[in-house]
Amino acid sequence: MARRAFPLALPRFRGKDKEMASAVEIDAMRRALELARRGPRGLNPQVGAVILSPAGDILAEGYHRGAGTAHAEVDALSQLSPDAARGATAVVTLEPCNHTGRTGPCALALIEAGIARVVYALDDPTDAASGGADRLRAAGVDVESGPEADAAEQLVRDWTHLQRTGRPHVTVKWAQSLDGRAAAADGTSQWITGPDARRDVHARRAQADAIVAGTGTVRSDDPALTARADDGSLLEDQPMPVIVGESETASDAAVRRHPRDPLFYSTHDLHAVLEDLAEQGVQRVFVEGGPTLASAFMREGLADELLVYIAPVLLGGSRLALGDVGVPSIDAAKRLSVASVTSLGDDLLIVARPAVPGPRSPETVPATAGENEGVA
Amino acid sequence: MARRAFPLALPRFRGKDKEMASAVEIDAMRRALELARRGPRGLNPQVGAVILSPAGDILAEGYHRGAGTAHAEVDALSQLSPDAARGATAVVTLEPCNHTGRTGPCALALIEAGIARVVYALDDPTDAASGGADRLRAAGVDVESGPEADAAEQLVRDWTHLQRTGRPHVTVKWAQSLDGRAAAADGTSQWITGPDARRDVHARRAQADAIVAGTGTVRSDDPALTARADDGSLLEDQPMPVIVGESETASDAAVRRHPRDPLFYSTHDLHAVLEDLAEQGVQRVFVEGGPTLASAFMREGLADELLVYIAPVLLGGSRLALGDVGVPSIDAAKRLSVASVTSLGDDLLIVARPAVPGPRSPETVPATAGENEGVA
Repeated sequence: MARRAFPLALPRFRGKDKEMASAVEIDAMRRALELARRGPRGLNPQVGAVILSPAGDILAEGYHRGAGTAHAEVDALSQLSPDAARGATAVVTLEPCNHTGRTGPCALALIEAGIARVVYALDDPTDAASGGADRLRAAGVDVESGPEADAAEQLVRDWTHLQRTGRPHVTVKWAQSLDGRAAAADGTSQWITGPDARRDVHARRAQADAIVAGTGTVRSDDPALTARADDGSLLEDQPMPVIVGESETASDAAVRRHPRDPLFYSTHDLHAVLEDLAEQGVQRVFVEGGPTLASAFMREGLADELLVYIAPVLLGGSRLALGDVGVPSIDAAKRLSVASVTSLGDDLLIVARPAVPGPRSPETVPATAGENEGVA
Repeated sequence: MARRAFPLALPRFRGKDKEMASAVEIDAMRRALELARRGPRGLNPQVGAVILSPAGDILAEGYHRGAGTAHAEVDALSQLSPDAARGATAVVTLEPCNHTGRTGPCALALIEAGIARVVYALDDPTDAASGGADRLRAAGVDVESGPEADAAEQLVRDWTHLQRTGRPHVTVKWAQSLDGRAAAADGTSQWITGPDARRDVHARRAQADAIVAGTGTVRSDDPALTARADDGSLLEDQPMPVIVGESETASDAAVRRHPRDPLFYSTHDLHAVLEDLAEQGVQRVFVEGGPTLASAFMREGLADELLVYIAPVLLGGSRLALGDVGVPSIDAAKRLSVASVTSLGDDLLIVARPAVPGPRSPETVPATAGENEGVA
């Protein structure tokens, strides 16, 4: 038997002890994450910063309040007198930027303030702004990265997605019977799924920047497109309602009473809609607007995540939850990767993502001619 | 705080120690269950019996070989000389019968053989045959019931179902995409689901007495309707192929090469088909014969169990896994109770049963007029 090789899990060698993030710094990072969340989701990432004295006391706090305003580090430094940050440690949720946009590079601001050490959670994922850590090191600043990186990554995940793809993260949600229907033959569909599933949907709506529906669904269902609690009251965070399609929305439509002004796109070009939303700083979109729209997003390959709520009922009939998704033949099937299956009361929630395209494994090649999926 | 009441879990009082099944008797019961499985599944239950000497040695073994032949107890007794069973213990998987059918009551046969003690696993679930234990006790025989009752119940579950309902246990199986399609728009459907799901299907086919397909599916897919191993070889147990519908099956159809002769029912009356199968001793039916047939079984309320294999793909289009199930409006939805959700490779298997009819819980009553399942 061959000797087993064990992966090395030794701590990385470090020249100086003080390069390890201390407990005080980790606490400060958690505080910086809290501060970051106070900022708006938009064109820029949410970032928070805390300035610590060499003794570990908080000297100042800051966060980014949106495009055109000071970055978090600069916001924190601005609360201190010119020399107060000399020798201090800056704890920041994201790698200090190294580029000049509407504001100057944060790395430079930190150097000029005399900051001796920078602890940040997450490397800047963008090409334009990265390099801040190198610049700081080159100026003799101690730099440490990594603490609370997962939380920091989660915080800017949608923004990162937008930077990488040029469009918001898109979740397409629908509810269906086990046999794939959205309604019974006569169109009735009230509460196919139960209260637990609806609660889950509303919580997820609240996490999105925008909720997208088609004009057909707005006309037929008159949805409020709000995120609501069980008692019908509005949750604190509300997605912006976005209506896509060419028919008119009635002046007394429920969506016009949404706490946020609805946005109307009189087009079927979903790519254009998403690009425009991205330019407005919409990082995360929740598509919940009926079979036609859901099918179009799938057909165009624009879904990053699917939420399929399955009620344990059979309905039959022609009211399908999904229509033409652009699959003429089985070889073109839209393959998914199931991330989770969860029970919500009587219902199931399947969370899936588009699978990386590629052939199925050889094991799946039919061994016998004439074999068929239905029965063989 | 109120005092908590604990359920009493004391052993039942017994007058004589020897009324408890001994370890030897429990071993004999396991042997009797093995013997029972040698008998055929058919109009009568599978039953096995072992005769033990007072010292615990096996004197004889027997099992039931099908309607018209000796019951298990009588089969075992028949191997002994007239007085050899006097004072012995009979260990039987099912309560000895008390009725005269094609054979006399087993209870009487045991009494006449001088059996001193009877240990059986499961009470006879039928009215006609029950009462054997009472008759034995009245004749002074020690009677003990219960050991290995679960295994014995499992063994005769389908037969019991047939006795109670007058028809076989019906499993309706289909495979579908997540959006409820059985095939892509052009009809191609090969291997929507993967090898693990197919293996599971074939194992379940082997457990059924009959596999039912519609003539349309037989014509279009030419299925073999056999239970096969991964390498295509036939499993030991094969369900009888049953073809339902009014169109002809070609003389060179694959099903005509099935190791068991196919049964053809030129009718759409599924109740009549099941009644006839029951009269032939078919206890368990596996319906796997296409969307039309599956829908008809659901529509008629004839499914006891559903197996829905869901492949993580979207297909869209009109090739639905289920058609009209007789649901005009949402109030008439065929509600299911999900027994399990299992991963099979990339696929999911949902096992469900028809839910007991009744209104949904009050919590599900809509709170707001105009709310709709799709989006609200």
